[in-house]
Amino acid sequence: MTLRPLSRYIPVLDWGRSYNGNALSNDLIAAVIVTIMLVPQSLAYALLAGLPPEAGIYASIVPIILYAIFGTSRALAVGPVAVVSLMTAAAIGNIAEAGTMGYAAAALTLAFLSGAMLLTMGILRLGFIANFLSHPVIAGFITASGILIASSQIGHILGVKTEGHTLPEILGSLVHGLGSTNWITVAIGVPATAFLFWVRKGLKPLLRSKGVGPRLADVLTKAGPVAAVVVTTLAVWAFGLADKGVKIVGDVPQSLPPLTIPDFSPSLVMQLLVPALLISVIGFVESISVAQTLAAKKRQRIDPDQELIGLGAANLGAAFTGGYPVTGGFARSVVNFDAGAETPAAGAFTAIGLAIAAVALTPLVFFLPKATLAATIIVAVLSLVDFSILKRSWTYSKDDFIAVLATILLTLTLGVETGVSAGVLLSLVLHIYKTTRPHIAEVGLVEGSEHFRNILRHPVKTDPALLSVRIDQSLYFANARFLEDFIYKRVMGHSEIKDVVLMFPAVNEVDLSALESLEAINSRLKDVGIRLHLSEVKGPVMDRLKRSHLLQELSGEVFLSQYDAWRRLTKADG
Amino acid sequence: MTLRPLSRYIPVLDWGRSYNGNALSNDLIAAVIVTIMLVPQSLAYALLAGLPPEAGIYASIVPIILYAIFGTSRALAVGPVAVVSLMTAAAIGNIAEAGTMGYAAAALTLAFLSGAMLLTMGILRLGFIANFLSHPVIAGFITASGILIASSQIGHILGVKTEGHTLPEILGSLVHGLGSTNWITVAIGVPATAFLFWVRKGLKPLLRSKGVGPRLADVLTKAGPVAAVVVTTLAVWAFGLADKGVKIVGDVPQSLPPLTIPDFSPSLVMQLLVPALLISVIGFVESISVAQTLAAKKRQRIDPDQELIGLGAANLGAAFTGGYPVTGGFARSVVNFDAGAETPAAGAFTAIGLAIAAVALTPLVFFLPKATLAATIIVAVLSLVDFSILKRSWTYSKDDFIAVLATILLTLTLGVETGVSAGVLLSLVLHIYKTTRPHIAEVGLVEGSEHFRNILRHPVKTDPALLSVRIDQSLYFANARFLEDFIYKRVMGHSEIKDVVLMFPAVNEVDLSALESLEAINSRLKDVGIRLHLSEVKGPVMDRLKRSHLLQELSGEVFLSQYDAWRRLTKADG
Repeated sequence: MTLRPLSRYIPVLDWGRSYNGNALSNDLIAAVIVTIMLVPQSLAYALLAGLPPEAGIYASIVPIILYAIFGTSRALAVGPVAVVSLMTAAAIGNIAEAGTMGYAAAALTLAFLSGAMLLTMGILRLGFIANFLSHPVIAGFITASGILIASSQIGHILGVKTEGHTLPEILGSLVHGLGSTNWITVAIGVPATAFLFWVRKGLKPLLRSKGVGPRLADVLTKAGPVAAVVVTTLAVWAFGLADKGVKIVGDVPQSLPPLTIPDFSPSLVMQLLVPALLISVIGFVESISVAQTLAAKKRQRIDPDQELIGLGAANLGAAFTGGYPVTGGFARSVVNFDAGAETPAAGAFTAIGLAIAAVALTPLVFFLPKATLAATIIVAVLSLVDFSILKRSWTYSKDDFIAVLATILLTLTLGVETGVSAGVLLSLVLHIYKTTRPHIAEVGLVEGSEHFRNILRHPVKTDPALLSVRIDQSLYFANARFLEDFIYKRVMGHSEIKDVVLMFPAVNEVDLSALESLEAINSRLKDVGIRLHLSEVKGPVMDRLKRSHLLQELSGEVFLSQYDAWRRLTKADG
Repeated sequence: MTLRPLSRYIPVLDWGRSYNGNALSNDLIAAVIVTIMLVPQSLAYALLAGLPPEAGIYASIVPIILYAIFGTSRALAVGPVAVVSLMTAAAIGNIAEAGTMGYAAAALTLAFLSGAMLLTMGILRLGFIANFLSHPVIAGFITASGILIASSQIGHILGVKTEGHTLPEILGSLVHGLGSTNWITVAIGVPATAFLFWVRKGLKPLLRSKGVGPRLADVLTKAGPVAAVVVTTLAVWAFGLADKGVKIVGDVPQSLPPLTIPDFSPSLVMQLLVPALLISVIGFVESISVAQTLAAKKRQRIDPDQELIGLGAANLGAAFTGGYPVTGGFARSVVNFDAGAETPAAGAFTAIGLAIAAVALTPLVFFLPKATLAATIIVAVLSLVDFSILKRSWTYSKDDFIAVLATILLTLTLGVETGVSAGVLLSLVLHIYKTTRPHIAEVGLVEGSEHFRNILRHPVKTDPALLSVRIDQSLYFANARFLEDFIYKRVMGHSEIKDVVLMFPAVNEVDLSALESLEAINSRLKDVGIRLHLSEVKGPVMDRLKRSHLLQELSGEVFLSQYDAWRRLTKADG
């Protein structure tokens, strides 16, 4: 590991030095807008994660500040997000009962493990682990998660208790509970959902057509959920609906984030290791793609390894301040960026806004109906559901289509952890499968030139005693046997062949398995009186081959160019 | 799936037609030699697998015949082998007590599952699954298995009961039992082991120096184990050593292979699925490499998919005739080949020889001491132990070295299944890791030519407004993000860059993830006023890209050659 300057690890030392009044006022405005949006959203995501509502607020305060210190994105807003909240619920749901102390403690442990993993990956520069998640797998996973989240919230809209972490379980418990639907809850939840949909789709165009300026129209649109919260809370309070079966948020402690200690009991840690890894990697992938999109717009750069450190610090912060796993969220980051945030200080100001809300506003949400929070979740996550990836992948590549479809179906039916793990595994297997059958072409000389081309596609000159084979891929364990089979199939039964030349212009690597296959090919061909030659071997590959016995034992020669081999081995050109 | 002629599925229809008297006599001689060698070996491997001795003989009869009908190798001898016997013991050892009916029934189930898997893989042409096993992983696994097998037999030599399937367990129980060493057993086992070593290393040179012909010397050497069996059996019988604590083989039913039905209870099947898959794949890999080595010597060809069918049929045969999982063995196949076997009929004659032994000779092994069988196993498997792979891989490639070392250590300490699974997983992860950082070079024009070379290695002409990047690998999900990072890192903060050209001459594939990365690069560069171009895109890649929106949305052009791009985009050449 190379040593890096301290400011690489703590970017605040970099941008903090040039901070000025202009940036300050831009950051402050952005912070106000984001805070307004985050209060209901944080409460809602905590509900989704099965945690008390204040956990959502707490998880938005210290993590934001820590990310501002350690992260490289200038606009990323870190906090609870829908998919990670769902994954938290799935991970802890089987271990503890929602609403208990054990549940909240397990959420802290999950945040701690996730933070520790992200930090470790960052320090060891292991960000490449995220590369194992292909785009189709992510797209399928996010879509399926959106469906799971939305359907898990329908119960809150109907006043029916639902259970489970898979679509069949959720729908089953929903159908089972339909008889006990609370119609007053429905009367709050359905209009709230409709209103929020309209705010999202129709309000901004309407305001603009009435001559409202774009910036103000934007702020009013973002404040839609706050309006829904205020109106429905007042309605519940005024008409005493809480006594008529409408579930409300209830008591929320009026406090700054508390200092908390995660539960480190070994059995809990063991159970949460895999979920924490999945949450880390998925959170990182979601976060980095948002960060890169926003950074590119201003020609800023995101350092993936440093992002791991920033997100790791944020999650550790969440673990010790009553939160749960967090990451950079798409919606909140875009709002932050659009609102003009210039530096991570905007995030710090947002944290202050949320801290004020936690201390001052929490009594006001006592009568907030859970149905309203469910409505904000449903409207937010339906934008995640995007089946177009199925059509895109079908048109572009069947392998990718299989990976998407399997990820969606398995996530819906077996849950988030199985779904995403199976997706990753399947895309790896499909990739290896493709590379196990590399393109290998038998080539001949293009008359009047020094070029060699595929004999199946071009009219070329060949010599029956000379077999020239071009390999269009690196050779490694998964395709080494394929090359052996190809050569034996072509050579055995053709006793006129005296020389075989393998052309290596596209071979960037020969691993030990492939080396042993080449040695086997060499010795087996030698047994039947055929010489093996190589041509156009790249420098680094040649360096490595020199460290083996292949070159000494090679029955033939290594030619600089295939044309050299042709001239030496055929009588065709004299 | 294409239709293949029937003789592709049943090779006997092919070679059977031209069978003649000469081939018959060669095959008969080979069969006699192999039979002599197989009797003690089969008894010994059954002991290793924790099964009654006759299971080893039964597993060598019907499977050989079925392989003769369906297999493609002319010299491969199918039956129990050391590594598969060890894996059988490991798979069943945790489920049933060795020596019980349940244990034997589970062995049948394991053979059935393994046969069904091999057959399915063969019919669906899934032989590529074996490619997931890299040579270093196999080499490490075989070496570690040899150590495990040899150490598990030391107990028999000492007359001490040992337990466990990992080196610490085996050595632990050995040390624990040392106090109860049976010295008479030692007096049989140690000389038998020494004798067999000498037979293997010293007998043949001695016989040759005494003027014995090479063929006879060979047969006498192969008969060494039989001599050990005869002498020690007579000793036990003559001196009544069985009453003095020497463990003997005891009653072996005098019978042809019985018709048996595997136990299909779902819980057993579920427990054995993974072990059966590992046994299938490892057995297949071992078998095919032996078959290919022997076939190449006579310019014959092995069809890997048909081999799966042959081995599948053999294992199903074992399942229904009192056997256990089988595969093509190295030692017996080489003996068969050296003895002059011309067709799979040699295998069928061997089966007849073993059937005669099963009916006629089994009473003779009543007093055979288990220590002698243990000695034959130890001497046989020590040839599997080969640590040179550690040195080879260390010299050649550190990645391969890590895979070997991890496979050896994990197989020894955690057992065969964990060891080989971890090895496979590790080599996949290391491979993906390597390809996540593909070689990407910034290139410039070689003065006075149309060639472009790496700016770091060659003196080349560049244009500050034009960034030309050559990608030396296919683009897929695991390296798509790396390309994005590379481009952003290079472009951001360099406002003089107006055009970026990606050279694709070595890109054989662009999967959906990489496509989306290219789209992201295109749109992010467009946001900051940089155009993205492609050059030297291969035909198949271009065909696929045309099915996406990338080419319509591309801010720049697609150039046939990088030189075209250079001429168009720079003022350098007018």
